[in-house]
Amino acid sequence: MSQILDITMGDPAGVGPEIAVKAVAEMGANERALTRIYGNRAILEKACAMTGVSIDLDAVVVNLDIEGQELEWGKLDPRCGDAAFRFSEKAVRDAQADEIGCIVTAPINKGALNLAGHHYDGHTGMLAALTGQKSAFMLLASDRLKVIHVSTHVSLKTAIDRATPDRILATIRAGNEHLKRMGYENPRIAVAGINPHCGESGLFGTEDDVQVVPAVAMAKAEGINVQGPISADTVYHRAYTGAFDLVIAQYHDQGHIPIKLVAFDTAVNVSLGLPIDRTSVDHGTAFDIAGTGKANHVNMKSAIAYARRLVSGKPA
Amino acid sequence: MSQILDITMGDPAGVGPEIAVKAVAEMGANERALTRIYGNRAILEKACAMTGVSIDLDAVVVNLDIEGQELEWGKLDPRCGDAAFRFSEKAVRDAQADEIGCIVTAPINKGALNLAGHHYDGHTGMLAALTGQKSAFMLLASDRLKVIHVSTHVSLKTAIDRATPDRILATIRAGNEHLKRMGYENPRIAVAGINPHCGESGLFGTEDDVQVVPAVAMAKAEGINVQGPISADTVYHRAYTGAFDLVIAQYHDQGHIPIKLVAFDTAVNVSLGLPIDRTSVDHGTAFDIAGTGKANHVNMKSAIAYARRLVSGKPA
Repeated sequence: MSQILDITMGDPAGVGPEIAVKAVAEMGANERALTRIYGNRAILEKACAMTGVSIDLDAVVVNLDIEGQELEWGKLDPRCGDAAFRFSEKAVRDAQADEIGCIVTAPINKGALNLAGHHYDGHTGMLAALTGQKSAFMLLASDRLKVIHVSTHVSLKTAIDRATPDRILATIRAGNEHLKRMGYENPRIAVAGINPHCGESGLFGTEDDVQVVPAVAMAKAEGINVQGPISADTVYHRAYTGAFDLVIAQYHDQGHIPIKLVAFDTAVNVSLGLPIDRTSVDHGTAFDIAGTGKANHVNMKSAIAYARRLVSGKPA
Repeated sequence: MSQILDITMGDPAGVGPEIAVKAVAEMGANERALTRIYGNRAILEKACAMTGVSIDLDAVVVNLDIEGQELEWGKLDPRCGDAAFRFSEKAVRDAQADEIGCIVTAPINKGALNLAGHHYDGHTGMLAALTGQKSAFMLLASDRLKVIHVSTHVSLKTAIDRATPDRILATIRAGNEHLKRMGYENPRIAVAGINPHCGESGLFGTEDDVQVVPAVAMAKAEGINVQGPISADTVYHRAYTGAFDLVIAQYHDQGHIPIKLVAFDTAVNVSLGLPIDRTSVDHGTAFDIAGTGKANHVNMKSAIAYARRLVSGKPA
């Protein structure tokens, strides 16, 4: 299995190019030799000049041309949306061919993507479509708190309905398998409740009893070390203070609120359930500061470090 | 307006008695002179003996008898539920008569309360009923993060429907008025979104556009310094790092998850919208450790400190 990581540059008008070159510049020679950037060389040169970093782009960059080089930082542009798509597409194909072991994605702009005729509900949806999957699970990982979501970009009401026993079970399984790959022998998994106090015996909704309880029972029957439902107002604190390795979040904000609070800059977005491995920064293109060199690359470094652990932990 | 605080002892079989006496024991003479415990003197004596603290109970305790003194720590008992009700009832009446300025409540047990024939959906609901109100707003206050809830003990689906423009507006107003009383000149209030990314222009639900946007507009028109809806995944982090004084949480767990994560032991529960002032510990009766002296009274101390600020900040 390839030990090479590929950073996709993301939207050329966003902060992707600058955080990519800043992160690569801080790598030692050995690590850099196992790193590629899929993007546009001219833009990456500008990013180096702007941020004052010096790297041998020839050794790192896999160049894809962009029609007309005069792009403006921070501007929504269909050429950028199309380029971002092509960087990802090439990365997916090369990952499928095991030329790279994991894709680390810089942010794309959904608006630019759509202007270019690539209609996806987001970065992860695009990668799922490119690999022929219906969906992927979003795991947000930080040192002390990890969460995986039963659903993400749907309305809260829809999320409640989507939290079926089957889907919750599939989420538990995906999280359990991932943590085993990451070296946890017997991952301690907690399943958060849907309603306040898990519905308090049906007083505040029956979803926890009807949808969550059976999923946890099935997962336990498979030998997974899982508990729940546990009241959402305490389970994240308990996991954060060491009681659990992973929390199953029942909807987008339930998992995002605690992670963003305790690991705003360092949480890594990991896609599970795809036939390829992918980590990502957990922020957007930041068009308001793109091209100024101000963008913080600490989240990109976290995404790279996680991908490195993921690839090296794999059986060869 | 009275400067005296009253601590209601809560369920006699829970940790209320021990955290009450421990907190009072650490007060200076001046502060203690402005403090009462409404509870049962015999139980409080046992709590003193068990925790090894020495206070002049005659000077502090307002005694209410409990039928049959042989109660067991940690045991659900209708006599305890009835006693907890009577401590609260007397506190409410004395607060209404301005003999006390604020009630600080130790935990009650809803099961014991119900066994005694007092049917309420919780402590706050009981206080609302005793003061002739339909409901109250729950504000959770910690040093760096404060949240107030549009709804609390209802199912998540019901909470989404309850977040009407009128109710959100009422919550904003209650929070704004409270923070002004607490000394904030022009409180900076953020309103969290209901759906992920506030629905992203209707892609993930329309509740933010239909229910939240009009409420924020009305509040702004009244001169309140309010912004929103702001995506729930970032607004709590922004408030915690100083951008806002208060966040309007759209449902129970949305506000409880971040507060419990960053201020598990110190968050104070404050009831707004009642004709009396009340703060409370934000934990339960902990029957599993009641009577062992192990219960941590740091949360009770926070609730007392907040009540003290609330009372002293009031116009005389």
